[in-house]
Amino acid sequence: MRNRQIFLVDKPEGALEERHFELREAEAPEPRAGEALVRTVLLSLDAANRAWMQGPTYRGEMAAGSVMEGFGVGEVVASKDGALAPGDLVAGMLGWQDYSVHPARRLRKLPRDYRPVSHFISLLGVAGKTAHHGLLQVGRPREGETVLVSAAAGSVGAYVGQIAKIKGCRAIGIAGGPDKCSWIVDTLGYDAAIDYKAEDVAQRLAELCPDGVDVYFDNVGGRILQAALFNMALRGRVVCCGAISQYDTTEMESPRGIPGVIVFKRLRLEGFIVSDFPDKDAEAERDLAAWYAEGRLQVAEDVLDGLEAAPRGLIGLLAGDNIGKRMVRVGPDPD
Amino acid sequence: MRNRQIFLVDKPEGALEERHFELREAEAPEPRAGEALVRTVLLSLDAANRAWMQGPTYRGEMAAGSVMEGFGVGEVVASKDGALAPGDLVAGMLGWQDYSVHPARRLRKLPRDYRPVSHFISLLGVAGKTAHHGLLQVGRPREGETVLVSAAAGSVGAYVGQIAKIKGCRAIGIAGGPDKCSWIVDTLGYDAAIDYKAEDVAQRLAELCPDGVDVYFDNVGGRILQAALFNMALRGRVVCCGAISQYDTTEMESPRGIPGVIVFKRLRLEGFIVSDFPDKDAEAERDLAAWYAEGRLQVAEDVLDGLEAAPRGLIGLLAGDNIGKRMVRVGPDPD
Repeated sequence: MRNRQIFLVDKPEGALEERHFELREAEAPEPRAGEALVRTVLLSLDAANRAWMQGPTYRGEMAAGSVMEGFGVGEVVASKDGALAPGDLVAGMLGWQDYSVHPARRLRKLPRDYRPVSHFISLLGVAGKTAHHGLLQVGRPREGETVLVSAAAGSVGAYVGQIAKIKGCRAIGIAGGPDKCSWIVDTLGYDAAIDYKAEDVAQRLAELCPDGVDVYFDNVGGRILQAALFNMALRGRVVCCGAISQYDTTEMESPRGIPGVIVFKRLRLEGFIVSDFPDKDAEAERDLAAWYAEGRLQVAEDVLDGLEAAPRGLIGLLAGDNIGKRMVRVGPDPD
Repeated sequence: MRNRQIFLVDKPEGALEERHFELREAEAPEPRAGEALVRTVLLSLDAANRAWMQGPTYRGEMAAGSVMEGFGVGEVVASKDGALAPGDLVAGMLGWQDYSVHPARRLRKLPRDYRPVSHFISLLGVAGKTAHHGLLQVGRPREGETVLVSAAAGSVGAYVGQIAKIKGCRAIGIAGGPDKCSWIVDTLGYDAAIDYKAEDVAQRLAELCPDGVDVYFDNVGGRILQAALFNMALRGRVVCCGAISQYDTTEMESPRGIPGVIVFKRLRLEGFIVSDFPDKDAEAERDLAAWYAEGRLQVAEDVLDGLEAAPRGLIGLLAGDNIGKRMVRVGPDPD
């Protein structure tokens, strides 16, 4: 079986470019005892993929010279482990390739009949659960509070604002460009949008939130984090989810005024990743599926076609050209 | 009655200097209905005094041209409020002066017979309560955890390490110079000290805390905060109490790597001031008094003599030349 694989052949110094990747072909590997061979159906493209190249984070640094790592959903085509059988739908770190072999315990079995499969990457995947855990377990907004979200048209931000509205909060989104800004208000139900490419974020925050922001869900870091910090309400909470403005560059910008603003506003800044709340996953999936079924939550997906689209898809995502959860369709859904 | 008053006549651009202050004399004011006239006994010198000159914080910016503000303990000499009588010992924002008039509700009545009176500024005052609330309400260390404290020989830090030890933690202190470093270990019982003037703090932290710091009690901000952040344990907590390195300068230094390090280590940074926990004040005072009585907690005071010593006392404090709680004796204890 022919296996297309995209390697990270070189690590970017500045911005990530297509030349850092290379498509190669090999024979598909064979599973050994305790392993399964998986055919990739959908690959998730995430800002975190780029952060992994910068150095050790919550995982080791990604090395050049190996298949690009990434989360995906696939179909088991062969198994040497009793827990998995051909035809099973699984999620895991499949990597940018058609086929891959994994210890069965590293794969999460998904319901076989749920459609669309893409929801396991968007609504019910890392994106939806990151939004749910981050907002409700870390930010813990109370009804009537103001929730601010950056990258509000992105994979996670699109859900954060909607969940905030479902919980009775006011939701303000920051996004780049008029299309995203209209979309988050008109389609997702954000109360207001700030276009960071055209507006002064700090000034608009002061206008829109004269009593301050109670919960800021930060996906971007940098200058927008700084503007948010100085517009927080007393005892505001900052959910530190990501820092997309800081990943594809060597010129990192920490916000000014730390720790002063944290002390005098008595802020709480707290970081998390989605796997920190395994005991809340079932609740999050239940909520998200129910809200979607009831028509209260819109799912936004941005699906690129073909494995070879992954490099430019990731590069574009880092530049903010996606709306909703970006993923790559590598192969057809299981029958 | 002659009243000496020290005015802040000019606001510092760079470092605070004696020329920014001026001693003037006036008649002592008369209390009106609901007010009391207080004779200052002891004035507290605090790094926060300097922060108030920088801009609005948890209180309004201090204006030039008025009596320098500051917390103190004094004796009521005349009262036109039923709640206070001559001879009462009170605490409040007395300012840098011999006599001052305040609404009775802005003064806190202290036990008349407790000695030494200085404890109401050190052990049982803002210093002790800031340490107790910050460590136990915000940092919440568990037995066996490693607690790191900056300005560990300072007014608050001296108590934080001792409370950490009483609670069964390992305490590491950062201080400037060999005298302070020996003192915090030999007298206060810190397990180890790092001399930030002579050692590479990040490297020493990595050596002393190979498993990371669980709770960092930050009194200084700047480069030491940065070194601490990158040496925190997973899910470590940073108690943001103050930022003395950032007050007496126009060249502020925010730590690098924010928010990245908060996300990947899943840190919690939380700011507070002592008045955030009024319902915990009694418990803190009870604990502190009991530990002192049992010989488990050392009280360190650095008392300067005479109101006129206040300006250089504050300037010296900002340069780190105090050991323990610095205060100024303005007049004798009540009989």
